[in-house]
Amino acid sequence: METVSTSKAHGGTLGVYRHDSAATGTPMTFSVFVPPQAAAGAKLPVLYYLSGLTCTHANVTDKGEYRRVCAELGVVFVAPDTSPRGDGVADDAAGAYDFGLGAGFYVNATVEPFARHYRMWDYIADELPALIAAEFPIDPARAGITGHSMGGHGALTLGLTFPDRFRSLSAFAPIVAPGQVPWGHKALAGYLGDDRAAWRAHDAVALIEDGRRPAGDILVDQGEADNFLVEQLRPELLRAAADAAGIALTLRLQPGYDHSYNFISTFMEDHVRWHAARL
Amino acid sequence: METVSTSKAHGGTLGVYRHDSAATGTPMTFSVFVPPQAAAGAKLPVLYYLSGLTCTHANVTDKGEYRRVCAELGVVFVAPDTSPRGDGVADDAAGAYDFGLGAGFYVNATVEPFARHYRMWDYIADELPALIAAEFPIDPARAGITGHSMGGHGALTLGLTFPDRFRSLSAFAPIVAPGQVPWGHKALAGYLGDDRAAWRAHDAVALIEDGRRPAGDILVDQGEADNFLVEQLRPELLRAAADAAGIALTLRLQPGYDHSYNFISTFMEDHVRWHAARL
Repeated sequence: METVSTSKAHGGTLGVYRHDSAATGTPMTFSVFVPPQAAAGAKLPVLYYLSGLTCTHANVTDKGEYRRVCAELGVVFVAPDTSPRGDGVADDAAGAYDFGLGAGFYVNATVEPFARHYRMWDYIADELPALIAAEFPIDPARAGITGHSMGGHGALTLGLTFPDRFRSLSAFAPIVAPGQVPWGHKALAGYLGDDRAAWRAHDAVALIEDGRRPAGDILVDQGEADNFLVEQLRPELLRAAADAAGIALTLRLQPGYDHSYNFISTFMEDHVRWHAARL
Repeated sequence: METVSTSKAHGGTLGVYRHDSAATGTPMTFSVFVPPQAAAGAKLPVLYYLSGLTCTHANVTDKGEYRRVCAELGVVFVAPDTSPRGDGVADDAAGAYDFGLGAGFYVNATVEPFARHYRMWDYIADELPALIAAEFPIDPARAGITGHSMGGHGALTLGLTFPDRFRSLSAFAPIVAPGQVPWGHKALAGYLGDDRAAWRAHDAVALIEDGRRPAGDILVDQGEADNFLVEQLRPELLRAAADAAGIALTLRLQPGYDHSYNFISTFMEDHVRWHAARL
């Protein structure tokens, strides 16, 4: 692991790091905020934040406004990239924003030419947490996961599949049912092929229907002025699936908020507190 | 004035606006955060934040972490650009980062080819406050000013020159004595010519020596790990000038902090509270 940069922030350290990922076969860059409590030698809880379409690690690092509350509560915050990048990594043939680079959808692709590098599921579920546990002062038994939009989809699917690894779960404006919306149709068909049975492992609503359960309750915030609400996000599908399964879902529709980091940064403190209370 | 975008944030509205500036003879873009208290019809205090070298309005807007505390305290936050831009606006001949575009140094240039558009002093002192008072729910008698690096220089020189307009004053890692440091030599010579007497109106330490006084006390934060501290920023010169003049200066040297927005965002809350308490 190579240190790209470090900078003191809110009493802790904001670092950007790069490593050669075995999962993706590419260099991967991520940021980690280590709060000041680490100086006392503590092993701290860790929150993984998965970003949305077009983002790198830098978007939430710059705009997420998480450092102050992480410093207050003693939470390590990890922000990975959203896809493999670099020489030889296939992109959408038309350069679309919603597939390929910046749009890995947190799956292991099985369709060429994406299968070689697009293995974000293994990267987030296995490789990155192992690296973080080895290199940073965290307690791997106290890990939570959240994310925005495509990253909210990733957080929900990973949290539902590995409740033993991700002990707390939340999302900002997540894609809750990619099998039922255009973004998801394109991504899941492109990465996993046309067999819709294979899609269900990467669809939070389908995972719940198929019996998966999170470690505990789930917090979801969703802006009511979000341009993607009706067509792509459809939180009512998660509401219905959670209710049918008896999952405790706190779904908050936030009047006037859009899909941007102005929305995310407003509610970030609530999410960090949600995770800290459960870790 | 044209609205470029608006977005709800922390209960208020973050907007980006553009207008044709009479001062600079160019379109100018700025951001304004209006906190939720404006909904009740209140005329609110306003804080101007002047950015540093290479920045536009967008840097502090994305990374400054000021919205939460402005929303708590009911402060309008205005972030202008750092220079004129566009067709016909001269730039540094070599494209340097510290002169020309993104580096207006908050002066009215008298040297061609800069004199035509580089009139950031008039823009910040007169034109922008008049526009803000006309278009936003602010009380112009309750205006404060702050800024970072080159923008800290602008805040100090404007605050010292117009204590009746800027009733509260602070800065992050400001250039306190441009007449005594390389960034300032280059900028003041380039914009104002070689007559050093003319420079003194744009040098906070010289302004204090020449009898100018701020409306009240001054808060300055400076990171001790700032790469520019020793050569370009030299807060000890402001300390000495303030002490000699009997100006109440709170100068805080912050161990471990660098020159970045990680530093600014850490101490932004303290600065907004400082201004709100005085406005």
